[in-house]
Amino acid sequence: MIELYAFATPNSVKVAIALEELGLPYELKPVNIRKGEQKHEEFLSLNPNGKVPVLVDDDFVLTESAAILVHLAEKTGRLLPTDGEDRARVFEQLFFHASGLSPAFGNAGFFKRSSPEPQPIAEARFTTEAERILGLLDDKLALQTFVAGEAFTIADIAHFGWLWRRQFPGLTLDGRPNLSRWYDVVANRAGVQRAIARLEALIEAPASAA
Amino acid sequence: MIELYAFATPNSVKVAIALEELGLPYELKPVNIRKGEQKHEEFLSLNPNGKVPVLVDDDFVLTESAAILVHLAEKTGRLLPTDGEDRARVFEQLFFHASGLSPAFGNAGFFKRSSPEPQPIAEARFTTEAERILGLLDDKLALQTFVAGEAFTIADIAHFGWLWRRQFPGLTLDGRPNLSRWYDVVANRAGVQRAIARLEALIEAPASAA
Repeated sequence: MIELYAFATPNSVKVAIALEELGLPYELKPVNIRKGEQKHEEFLSLNPNGKVPVLVDDDFVLTESAAILVHLAEKTGRLLPTDGEDRARVFEQLFFHASGLSPAFGNAGFFKRSSPEPQPIAEARFTTEAERILGLLDDKLALQTFVAGEAFTIADIAHFGWLWRRQFPGLTLDGRPNLSRWYDVVANRAGVQRAIARLEALIEAPASAA
Repeated sequence: MIELYAFATPNSVKVAIALEELGLPYELKPVNIRKGEQKHEEFLSLNPNGKVPVLVDDDFVLTESAAILVHLAEKTGRLLPTDGEDRARVFEQLFFHASGLSPAFGNAGFFKRSSPEPQPIAEARFTTEAERILGLLDDKLALQTFVAGEAFTIADIAHFGWLWRRQFPGLTLDGRPNLSRWYDVVANRAGVQRAIARLEALIEAPASAA
């Protein structure tokens, strides 16, 4: 049985969505990051980087949410085209997400909410960059149904993770009609709703088993 | 003929190294980012994200350096294992680079050198994170020859790009014996040296053709 160490975070939800969409059974292992459990010795032995999600599958431990998405897609032969430009577009979006959207959203949220003192240049830098990236995605989605083309792929799952948590960096989809349309389509998928429900239940759980 | 739009940058050098290592002929198209050419209309028509590198190959345009590395590795069947844990480890490192090392290095450099006013919390945040990541890589390279295992892969090429430019964020390899050993091994490869020479020549060129 696949094990998923996770919490209700932007990166965790990506993997839960992929598992639900692919119909792969998995045991959810809660790691309560609000209590700092991702820095406990037991968890660091799984991932020295101290971050969720972590997948245990095929007798090995895998970290990095997007690497897990690629692993699951290739294992099942789904959600990732097998060759040519269609395949390259998925990787282009996965790395645009990992190197662009994800750090912009995460840092915009940190400097807006968590910095011990205001850092106005830093806050503006990451908020402006996050807005620029939302604009690029909106432009792309004016021309195609999903972020990497006409098919739903793991690239949509990656972007959805942070867009689902856009309140943390204080961002909205206002004025982004194409991105809003895409968001609603993805959010309404049954697998996406099952994944969100399973992860949100962890927040309200009385005690973590991790 | 493959075309590579690039300059002497951490992300550009990754693609030039892959092309040299794989023995693929390519035409180098300089984009002088010191003159802002990556924001010119002609370049934005290739990459609306306004960033180098960009590859033109197999009749399509591809952005995101790590997505280009995956494309080239799969096209040639080299520098990326075909299945199992060995393959997953390469993607794990590619995404650890894209989401972790690369933004930490880039932002540490920005707040150390380019911010219009000091942002001490931001500068410390990214410098500390960059040092933490160097420590994780040093620990990993105490146990294995290359970042994703015993073979040289595109994951080594990705990490090398930013480590080659570690002076920008003011970082060193001091006290990181395993990472230093790895850096020297990679830097001494003939393909790596050819790629660096071709990109560094662009800085000294009297006029850009882009």
